[in-house]
Amino acid sequence: MSSAPDILLDIKWELAGKRAAFEAALPGRSVMTLPDARANGVSLDQVRYAVVWHPEDGFLASLPNLNVIFSLGAGVDHVVRDPHLPDLPLVRFVDPDLTGRMVEWVVLQVLMHLRRQRVYDRQQRQKHWHEISTPAAHELRVGIMGFGTLGRACAQALLALGFQVNGWARSAKSCEGVKTFAGEGASAAFLAETDILVSLLPLTAQTKGILNRTLFESLSRSGPFKAPVLINAGRGGSQVETDIDRALQDGTLFGASLDVFETEPLPENSPLWAHENCIITPHMAAVSNAQALANHVAVQIAKHEAGETMDHLVDPQQGY
Amino acid sequence: MSSAPDILLDIKWELAGKRAAFEAALPGRSVMTLPDARANGVSLDQVRYAVVWHPEDGFLASLPNLNVIFSLGAGVDHVVRDPHLPDLPLVRFVDPDLTGRMVEWVVLQVLMHLRRQRVYDRQQRQKHWHEISTPAAHELRVGIMGFGTLGRACAQALLALGFQVNGWARSAKSCEGVKTFAGEGASAAFLAETDILVSLLPLTAQTKGILNRTLFESLSRSGPFKAPVLINAGRGGSQVETDIDRALQDGTLFGASLDVFETEPLPENSPLWAHENCIITPHMAAVSNAQALANHVAVQIAKHEAGETMDHLVDPQQGY
Repeated sequence: MSSAPDILLDIKWELAGKRAAFEAALPGRSVMTLPDARANGVSLDQVRYAVVWHPEDGFLASLPNLNVIFSLGAGVDHVVRDPHLPDLPLVRFVDPDLTGRMVEWVVLQVLMHLRRQRVYDRQQRQKHWHEISTPAAHELRVGIMGFGTLGRACAQALLALGFQVNGWARSAKSCEGVKTFAGEGASAAFLAETDILVSLLPLTAQTKGILNRTLFESLSRSGPFKAPVLINAGRGGSQVETDIDRALQDGTLFGASLDVFETEPLPENSPLWAHENCIITPHMAAVSNAQALANHVAVQIAKHEAGETMDHLVDPQQGY
Repeated sequence: MSSAPDILLDIKWELAGKRAAFEAALPGRSVMTLPDARANGVSLDQVRYAVVWHPEDGFLASLPNLNVIFSLGAGVDHVVRDPHLPDLPLVRFVDPDLTGRMVEWVVLQVLMHLRRQRVYDRQQRQKHWHEISTPAAHELRVGIMGFGTLGRACAQALLALGFQVNGWARSAKSCEGVKTFAGEGASAAFLAETDILVSLLPLTAQTKGILNRTLFESLSRSGPFKAPVLINAGRGGSQVETDIDRALQDGTLFGASLDVFETEPLPENSPLWAHENCIITPHMAAVSNAQALANHVAVQIAKHEAGETMDHLVDPQQGY
């Protein structure tokens, strides 16, 4: 347990359970969490694999034997922002478990807005029996920005419920039943046809602050709700929260569901907490279970050590 | 407008919009609502088609030229309970619009329980950022009781989200990807494998009060939540609300979503309103839009007048 680890976990929370999951997935390997290593003065010179979430700047560069960096999630912005990031393979976490959870969350949020769940919640607290007329799924166009593995899986689930689905990505993608748009030149057309915008964008220089008032004003206002809904399960850095707050107040947005924020945890003084039509969850949309993460890391380590190409390698230039 | 109508609407609410929808779907026919007819002393002797929701006992028998009775919904319990019901064709309303809305509601409710939405709602009101570990969809078995058109459509949508789905009906049904159970002899096995029970049962002599404590105690307690969830979008007469209240209090049920009640509107003094883990909606799960209903009635009237067999005819003995 206190022998020099070759697998280091620097993932900030629920460490005990995660370490057990990694030990189960990687029998015979020495796995340690960063707090344990520091508390016990253990050398990190033998660490070959680091599984990280928001590592300190320069920390990864301080590991002399590091082979591979694993991100805890599908995004890697929390890693690539390190100015001293070593030039090593960086692997993000995409697996069916994580994808399935993202689909659950996105579908749940889309349906909560469609069926006016927050109004019914309030009516229940008031013991008030009152039916509200709502449109059918097929009357709404959901536009998914960021149309990779997660976006396409969300699209399939929404199509099965009858929604019209459009997708936008930087490069051309295709997906049966979905009208796809590619590149910045197509974004205005995409936004104009979107009643419910689902952002699954990675955080990059291009997407920072992209979910702002100008974008909200570019969304469709001809849908059944006469104003668009914003759903963000990508990264908080993509959104301008003062603009969201104002857009919810003045009706530029009909509603929002936010799982990610500019600062996390969302500060208590944020006005977003108080909007009935803004559903807030604590960056849990696609938190995968520890065992799925550990199994993914174990599979990629085996590939790496067999000289094979690992899956889900990130291009540090693109940032995803 | 005040000529003797041949199509009478006795559907209790939103009458103005519904009448316009019927006039659009049935050009040249005289359509009237029952309140208008009574207010203007119009004779109902020419009424051939009645579209009804909870008609007064004996009212349908008082229409001398009635040809066909149309139920406003998928259920007909509100019609067949009339001791003076005339022996005429009775047509229920099942169409893609209504089916789609039921699927939306059922999927929304299942996901709200899976993702602990009511706990996150409370945390938002408290401005409290706290992640709760939740199981993945594939870890839960949804059991659908009442496995007709609506049940099978719900099953397909839940399968697409990764849930395990079982179905129970009185007579044998098949549905790809679903383990089906038929008849009363199989109900114990079905319930024992159900973590989330979705009832879409019609109200009949057999189903009255079936959702009671004995049934709740027969459901699985081995799923991720260690106690079952009850979702009822069938009929309130199938449920025993004092049992649901107690089961929510003592943990026999993990949660519930109820769209239907023994008495509707649900009385203000019902204890069900106050349970955080009991989601209450005002019998709106599958309220279809007026135009879809009117189009359905127009299609069936055309079939009837052409001497063809109408769709969705009810067997009064079975009650569905």
